[in-house]
Amino acid sequence: MTVVLGVDPGLKRVGYSVLEQTNSGIGLRCAGLIATDPTVPLGERLADIFGSVDDIIREYRPSQLVLERILFAKNVTSALLVAQAVGVIKLAGARHGLEASEIGANQVKLALSGDGHASKAQMKKMVVLLLGLHRAPEPADVSDAIAIAYAHLSGDWSRS
Amino acid sequence: MTVVLGVDPGLKRVGYSVLEQTNSGIGLRCAGLIATDPTVPLGERLADIFGSVDDIIREYRPSQLVLERILFAKNVTSALLVAQAVGVIKLAGARHGLEASEIGANQVKLALSGDGHASKAQMKKMVVLLLGLHRAPEPADVSDAIAIAYAHLSGDWSRS
Repeated sequence: MTVVLGVDPGLKRVGYSVLEQTNSGIGLRCAGLIATDPTVPLGERLADIFGSVDDIIREYRPSQLVLERILFAKNVTSALLVAQAVGVIKLAGARHGLEASEIGANQVKLALSGDGHASKAQMKKMVVLLLGLHRAPEPADVSDAIAIAYAHLSGDWSRS
Repeated sequence: MTVVLGVDPGLKRVGYSVLEQTNSGIGLRCAGLIATDPTVPLGERLADIFGSVDDIIREYRPSQLVLERILFAKNVTSALLVAQAVGVIKLAGARHGLEASEIGANQVKLALSGDGHASKAQMKKMVVLLLGLHRAPEPADVSDAIAIAYAHLSGDWSRS
Protein backbone atom coordinates (compact mmCIF):
# COMPACT_ATOMS: atom_id res chain seq x y z
CA MET A 1 0.00 0.00 0.00
CA THR A 2 1.25 3.47 -0.90
CA VAL A 3 0.12 6.41 1.21
CA VAL A 4 0.77 9.84 -0.26
CA LEU A 5 0.44 13.25 1.31
CA GLY A 6 -0.53 15.82 -1.32
CA VAL A 7 -0.09 19.50 -0.59
CA ASP A 8 -1.33 22.62 -2.35
CA PRO A 9 1.12 25.08 -0.82
CA GLY A 10 0.35 28.62 0.26
CA LEU A 11 0.95 30.98 3.14
CA LYS A 12 -2.63 31.87 4.05
CA ARG A 13 -4.12 28.52 3.07
CA VAL A 14 -2.40 25.15 2.68
CA GLY A 15 -4.61 22.41 1.26
CA TYR A 16 -3.63 18.85 2.11
CA SER A 17 -4.86 15.35 1.36
CA VAL A 18 -3.85 11.83 2.28
CA LEU A 19 -4.60 9.24 -0.41
CA GLU A 20 -3.83 5.55 -0.32
CA GLN A 21 -3.33 3.25 -3.23
CA THR A 22 -4.18 -0.41 -2.70
CA ASN A 23 -4.95 -3.31 -5.04
CA SER A 24 -8.53 -2.09 -5.20
CA GLY A 25 -7.59 1.40 -6.32
CA ILE A 26 -6.96 4.86 -4.94
CA GLY A 27 -8.93 6.01 -1.91
CA LEU A 28 -9.17 9.18 0.18
CA ARG A 29 -8.03 8.86 3.80
CA CYS A 30 -8.47 12.51 4.74
CA ALA A 31 -8.23 16.03 3.38
CA GLY A 32 -8.27 19.42 4.97
CA LEU A 33 -6.99 22.94 5.18
CA ILE A 34 -4.25 24.56 7.25
CA ALA A 35 -5.19 28.23 7.55
CA THR A 36 -2.81 30.78 9.04
CA ASP A 37 -3.73 34.07 10.62
CA PRO A 38 -2.61 36.97 8.39
CA THR A 39 -2.46 39.27 11.43
CA VAL A 40 0.30 37.33 13.19
CA PRO A 41 4.01 37.63 12.29
CA LEU A 42 5.29 35.58 9.36
CA GLY A 43 7.54 33.40 11.50
CA GLU A 44 4.59 32.27 13.60
CA ARG A 45 2.58 31.48 10.48
CA LEU A 46 5.46 29.36 9.16
CA ALA A 47 5.65 27.63 12.54
CA ASP A 48 1.90 26.90 12.37
CA ILE A 49 2.26 25.35 8.92
CA PHE A 50 5.29 23.32 9.98
CA GLY A 51 3.54 22.08 13.13
CA SER A 52 0.36 21.13 11.27
CA VAL A 53 2.19 19.23 8.53
CA ASP A 54 4.27 17.49 11.20
CA ASP A 55 1.04 16.44 12.97
CA ILE A 56 -0.50 15.12 9.75
CA ILE A 57 2.61 13.06 8.95
CA ARG A 58 2.67 11.64 12.50
CA GLU A 59 -0.99 10.65 12.26
CA TYR A 60 -1.18 9.25 8.73
CA ARG A 61 2.40 8.06 8.15
CA PRO A 62 2.56 8.79 4.41
CA SER A 63 5.37 7.15 2.46
CA GLN A 64 5.42 9.89 -0.16
CA LEU A 65 5.04 13.66 -0.17
CA VAL A 66 4.10 15.68 -3.24
CA LEU A 67 3.58 19.43 -3.60
CA GLU A 68 2.30 21.45 -6.49
CA ARG A 69 5.16 23.39 -8.05
CA ILE A 70 4.99 27.13 -7.48
CA LEU A 71 4.23 29.35 -10.41
CA PHE A 72 5.36 32.93 -10.13
CA ALA A 73 3.78 34.22 -13.27
CA LYS A 74 1.19 36.22 -11.36
CA ASN A 75 2.96 37.84 -8.46
CA VAL A 76 6.62 37.44 -7.62
CA THR A 77 6.37 38.83 -4.07
CA SER A 78 3.59 36.41 -3.31
CA ALA A 79 5.57 33.55 -4.90
CA LEU A 80 8.52 34.28 -2.60
CA LEU A 81 6.21 34.06 0.44
CA VAL A 82 4.66 30.80 -0.75
CA ALA A 83 8.18 29.45 -1.34
CA GLN A 84 8.98 30.11 2.33
CA ALA A 85 5.95 28.01 3.26
CA VAL A 86 7.13 25.32 0.82
CA GLY A 87 10.47 25.32 2.63
CA VAL A 88 8.93 24.50 6.02
CA ILE A 89 6.59 21.88 4.47
CA LYS A 90 9.58 20.12 2.86
CA LEU A 91 11.45 20.40 6.16
CA ALA A 92 8.57 18.69 7.98
CA GLY A 93 8.73 15.90 5.41
CA ALA A 94 12.52 15.57 5.58
CA ARG A 95 12.42 15.24 9.37
CA HIS A 96 10.25 12.15 8.87
CA GLY A 97 12.45 10.77 6.09
CA LEU A 98 10.12 11.93 3.30
CA GLU A 99 11.70 13.62 0.32
CA ALA A 100 9.20 15.92 -1.37
CA SER A 101 8.52 15.71 -5.08
CA GLU A 102 6.87 18.47 -7.08
CA ILE A 103 4.29 18.28 -9.81
CA GLY A 104 3.20 21.04 -12.17
CA ALA A 105 -0.40 22.27 -12.25
CA ASN A 106 -0.70 21.23 -15.89
CA GLN A 107 0.49 17.70 -15.13
CA VAL A 108 -2.19 17.47 -12.43
CA LYS A 109 -4.89 18.61 -14.83
CA LEU A 110 -3.66 16.23 -17.51
CA ALA A 111 -3.58 13.26 -15.15
CA LEU A 112 -7.15 13.74 -13.89
CA SER A 113 -8.96 15.02 -16.95
CA GLY A 114 -6.78 14.27 -19.96
CA ASP A 115 -6.56 18.02 -20.57
CA GLY A 116 -3.60 20.03 -19.28
CA HIS A 117 -5.73 23.16 -19.41
CA ALA A 118 -8.88 21.82 -17.73
CA SER A 119 -11.06 24.38 -15.93
CA LYS A 120 -11.40 24.55 -12.16
CA ALA A 121 -14.99 23.29 -12.42
CA GLN A 122 -13.90 20.34 -14.54
CA MET A 123 -11.17 19.44 -12.03
CA LYS A 124 -13.64 19.51 -9.15
CA LYS A 125 -15.94 17.15 -11.06
CA MET A 126 -13.06 14.75 -11.71
CA VAL A 127 -12.02 14.74 -8.02
CA VAL A 128 -15.60 13.83 -7.05
CA LEU A 129 -15.81 11.15 -9.74
CA LEU A 130 -12.39 9.53 -9.27
CA LEU A 131 -12.53 9.38 -5.47
CA GLY A 132 -16.22 8.46 -5.27
CA LEU A 133 -17.15 11.53 -3.21
CA HIS A 134 -20.60 13.06 -2.81
CA ARG A 135 -19.31 16.54 -3.58
CA ALA A 136 -16.02 18.38 -4.01
CA PRO A 137 -14.38 19.40 -0.74
CA GLU A 138 -14.25 23.13 -0.08
CA PRO A 139 -12.36 25.41 -0.26
CA ALA A 140 -10.72 24.74 -3.62
CA ASP A 141 -7.30 24.32 -1.96
CA VAL A 142 -8.53 21.02 -0.44
CA SER A 143 -9.91 19.70 -3.70
CA ASP A 144 -6.66 20.78 -5.40
CA ALA A 145 -4.59 18.89 -2.82
CA ILE A 146 -6.58 15.73 -3.56
CA ALA A 147 -5.99 16.20 -7.28
CA ILE A 148 -2.24 16.69 -6.67
CA ALA A 149 -1.92 13.45 -4.67
CA TYR A 150 -4.09 11.56 -7.17
CA ALA A 151 -2.00 12.73 -10.12
CA HIS A 152 1.17 11.74 -8.30
CA LEU A 153 -0.16 8.23 -7.69
CA SER A 154 -1.60 7.72 -11.14
CA GLY A 155 1.12 9.26 -13.26
CA ASP A 156 4.39 7.89 -14.55
CA TRP A 157 6.16 10.47 -12.37
CA SER A 158 5.02 8.60 -9.23
CA ARG A 159 7.35 5.76 -10.18
CA SER A 160 10.37 7.92 -10.93
CA MET B 1 22.95 44.51 25.54
CA THR B 2 21.44 43.63 22.17
CA VAL B 3 22.59 40.45 20.45
CA VAL B 4 21.64 40.13 16.81
CA LEU B 5 21.94 37.15 14.48
CA GLY B 6 22.53 38.34 10.93
CA VAL B 7 21.98 35.94 8.04
CA ASP B 8 22.89 36.12 4.37
CA PRO B 9 20.47 33.48 3.10
CA GLY B 10 21.13 30.91 0.41
CA LEU B 11 20.66 27.23 -0.28
CA LYS B 12 24.26 26.22 -0.96
CA ARG B 13 25.83 28.73 1.41
CA VAL B 14 24.26 30.56 4.36
CA GLY B 15 26.48 33.20 5.94
CA TYR B 16 25.77 34.06 9.56
CA SER B 17 27.10 36.42 12.20
CA VAL B 18 26.36 37.21 15.81
CA LEU B 19 27.01 40.83 16.79
CA GLU B 20 26.46 42.42 20.16
CA GLN B 21 25.80 46.03 20.90
CA THR B 22 26.89 47.31 24.31
CA ASN B 23 27.61 50.75 25.72
CA SER B 24 31.09 50.50 24.25
CA GLY B 25 29.84 49.83 20.74
CA ILE B 26 29.17 46.98 18.37
CA GLY B 27 31.36 43.87 18.56
CA LEU B 28 31.60 40.55 16.73
CA ARG B 29 30.82 37.45 18.77
CA CYS B 30 31.15 34.94 15.95
CA ALA B 31 30.59 34.49 12.24
CA GLY B 32 30.61 31.50 9.96
CA LEU B 33 29.17 29.60 7.06
CA ILE B 34 26.53 26.88 6.83
CA ALA B 35 27.31 24.95 3.65
CA THR B 36 24.95 22.31 2.29
CA ASP B 37 25.82 19.43 0.02
CA PRO B 38 24.35 19.99 -3.48
CA THR B 39 24.35 16.22 -4.08
CA VAL B 40 21.85 15.43 -1.30
CA PRO B 41 18.07 15.89 -1.68
CA LEU B 42 16.65 19.36 -1.11
CA GLY B 43 14.69 18.38 2.00
CA GLU B 44 17.88 17.21 3.72
CA ARG B 45 19.64 20.44 2.80
CA LEU B 46 16.77 22.44 4.30
CA ALA B 47 16.97 20.25 7.40
CA ASP B 48 20.73 20.94 7.65
CA ILE B 49 20.14 24.69 7.45
CA PHE B 50 17.32 24.54 10.01
CA GLY B 51 19.41 22.43 12.40
CA SER B 52 22.46 24.69 12.12
CA VAL B 53 20.50 27.90 12.70
CA ASP B 54 18.75 26.24 15.63
CA ASP B 55 22.18 25.32 17.10
CA ILE B 56 23.50 28.88 16.65
CA ILE B 57 20.44 30.37 18.37
CA ARG B 58 20.77 27.90 21.27
CA GLU B 59 24.44 28.77 21.71
CA TYR B 60 24.40 32.55 21.30
CA ARG B 61 20.84 33.42 22.40
CA PRO B 62 20.33 36.38 20.04
CA SER B 63 17.44 38.72 20.84
CA GLN B 64 17.02 39.75 17.20
CA LEU B 65 17.21 38.02 13.83
CA VAL B 66 17.77 39.84 10.56
CA LEU B 67 18.06 38.44 7.03
CA GLU B 68 18.98 40.12 3.80
CA ARG B 69 15.91 40.44 1.61
CA ILE B 70 15.92 38.18 -1.45
CA LEU B 71 16.31 39.79 -4.83
CA PHE B 72 15.04 37.82 -7.76
CA ALA B 73 16.30 40.07 -10.50
CA LYS B 74 18.92 37.57 -11.61
CA ASN B 75 17.33 34.15 -11.53
CA VAL B 76 13.77 33.40 -10.46
CA THR B 77 14.24 29.64 -10.08
CA SER B 78 17.20 30.25 -7.82
CA ALA B 79 15.24 32.88 -5.86
CA LEU B 80 12.46 30.36 -5.19
CA LEU B 81 15.03 27.90 -3.81
CA VAL B 82 16.64 30.56 -1.61
CA ALA B 83 13.15 31.53 -0.37
CA GLN B 84 12.64 27.94 0.80
CA ALA B 85 15.86 28.25 2.82
CA VAL B 86 14.61 31.60 4.18
CA GLY B 87 11.44 29.82 5.30
CA VAL B 88 13.31 27.31 7.46
CA ILE B 89 15.64 30.01 8.85
CA LYS B 90 12.61 32.10 9.92
CA LEU B 91 11.02 28.95 11.36
CA ALA B 92 14.14 28.28 13.46
CA GLY B 93 13.89 31.86 14.75
CA ALA B 94 10.16 31.65 15.45
CA ARG B 95 10.60 28.48 17.47
CA HIS B 96 12.88 30.47 19.78
CA GLY B 97 10.53 33.45 19.90
CA LEU B 98 12.54 35.49 17.39
CA GLU B 99 10.62 37.25 14.67
CA ALA B 100 12.84 37.82 11.64
CA SER B 101 13.21 41.20 10.06
CA GLU B 102 14.54 41.77 6.57
CA ILE B 103 16.87 44.41 5.24
CA GLY B 104 17.60 45.27 1.63
CA ALA B 105 21.11 44.97 0.19
CA ASN B 106 21.14 48.68 -0.60
CA GLN B 107 20.21 49.56 2.98
CA VAL B 108 23.13 47.45 4.20
CA LYS B 109 25.54 49.20 1.84
CA LEU B 110 24.21 52.60 2.82
CA ALA B 111 24.48 51.88 6.54
CA LEU B 112 28.11 50.75 6.40
CA SER B 113 29.60 52.96 3.69
CA GLY B 114 27.21 55.84 3.16
CA ASP B 115 26.71 54.63 -0.41
CA GLY B 116 23.79 52.37 -1.35
CA HIS B 117 25.74 51.15 -4.36
CA ALA B 118 29.09 50.48 -2.68
CA SER B 119 31.28 47.79 -4.28
CA LYS B 120 31.92 44.40 -2.72
CA ALA B 121 35.54 45.41 -2.05
CA GLN B 122 34.42 48.61 -0.32
CA MET B 123 31.97 46.67 1.86
CA LYS B 124 34.69 44.22 2.91
CA LYS B 125 36.92 47.12 3.93
CA MET B 126 34.12 48.66 5.99
CA VAL B 127 33.42 45.36 7.79
CA VAL B 128 37.12 45.13 8.73
CA LEU B 129 37.24 48.75 9.85
CA LEU B 130 33.96 48.90 11.79
CA LEU B 131 34.43 45.62 13.66
CA GLY B 132 38.18 46.08 14.24
CA LEU B 133 39.14 42.89 12.40
CA HIS B 134 42.52 42.00 10.92
CA ARG B 135 40.98 40.99 7.60
CA ALA B 136 37.57 40.32 6.08
CA PRO B 137 36.20 36.86 6.81
CA GLU B 138 35.91 34.54 3.83
CA PRO B 139 33.90 33.53 1.90
CA ALA B 140 32.01 36.74 1.09
CA ASP B 141 28.77 35.29 2.54
CA VAL B 142 30.30 35.54 6.03
CA SER B 143 31.45 39.12 5.57
CA ASP B 144 28.02 39.94 4.13
CA ALA B 145 26.28 38.43 7.17
CA ILE B 146 28.36 40.67 9.45
CA ALA B 147 27.42 43.71 7.37
CA ILE B 148 23.72 42.74 7.55
CA ALA B 149 23.74 42.46 11.35
CA TYR B 150 25.78 45.68 11.68
CA ALA B 151 23.38 47.61 9.45
CA HIS B 152 20.44 46.30 11.47
CA LEU B 153 22.01 47.46 14.73
CA SER B 154 23.16 50.83 13.46
CA GLY B 155 20.16 51.82 11.38
CA ASP B 156 16.90 53.45 12.30
CA TRP B 157 15.15 50.24 11.20
CA SER B 158 16.67 48.40 14.18
CA ARG B 159 14.45 50.42 16.48
CA SER B 160 11.27 49.94 14.48
